[in-house]
Amino acid sequence: MKNQSTPTINQFVGLVKTNPFENSLEAIEQLAGSIVNDLNLNVVKKFSHTFSPKGITLIYILSESHLVIHTWPELGVIHIDLATCSFRTLEGFKKTLKHALYDYNNHSIRVKQIDIDKL
Amino acid sequence: MKNQSTPTINQFVGLVKTNPFENSLEAIEQLAGSIVNDLNLNVVKKFSHTFSPKGITLIYILSESHLVIHTWPELGVIHIDLATCSFRTLEGFKKTLKHALYDYNNHSIRVKQIDIDKL
Repeated sequence: MKNQSTPTINQFVGLVKTNPFENSLEAIEQLAGSIVNDLNLNVVKKFSHTFSPKGITLIYILSESHLVIHTWPELGVIHIDLATCSFRTLEGFKKTLKHALYDYNNHSIRVKQIDIDKL
Repeated sequence: MKNQSTPTINQFVGLVKTNPFENSLEAIEQLAGSIVNDLNLNVVKKFSHTFSPKGITLIYILSESHLVIHTWPELGVIHIDLATCSFRTLEGFKKTLKHALYDYNNHSIRVKQIDIDKL
């Protein structure tokens, strides 16, 4: 199946390390909302799951693909997975995360783009 | 936030190119079921969305993280995104996809592991 057309898929992963934070769905929804607004994404459906004793997974199906956020509040860790069929840059993704995490003191953000065309 | 403990996150992405296929949620659920069984994943919640005119997104929240499958039936393209907090290998992921796609004639599979620790 060579030379076959492929949809444009831009996938970005972010790993955030910060201080332990509250196990709050509302806070993670705020984070997701900031990312959605900044990157001008279109949310089709929203889902979440709260794990016991702690940890929240938030999933947005986008018209362009998906945004998935996993949290480990007790460790201060947030994993963000964004796949979009419209053009975005790694720099834009990192800038968006920085903005979304403005209220999280003492944090580090690492990001990576997955080059689907080179899989 | 250096030297902070991080949960183990193994993330794998697969891109499948095959012949155009039916826009069937049932077929994609079978594909997901095969992956879940082969990799011994624990499904917590299942969601899906069918796009117009074609395309299905299937999302499983796992006790270990997530499995997301996007399809472009008219292009014969399937994008598979697996994040798990338990140990899996890239070879195991590819073998699992090969098995799950056994009934898809004339297909290619490309896979990639995202090394979260090196983000």
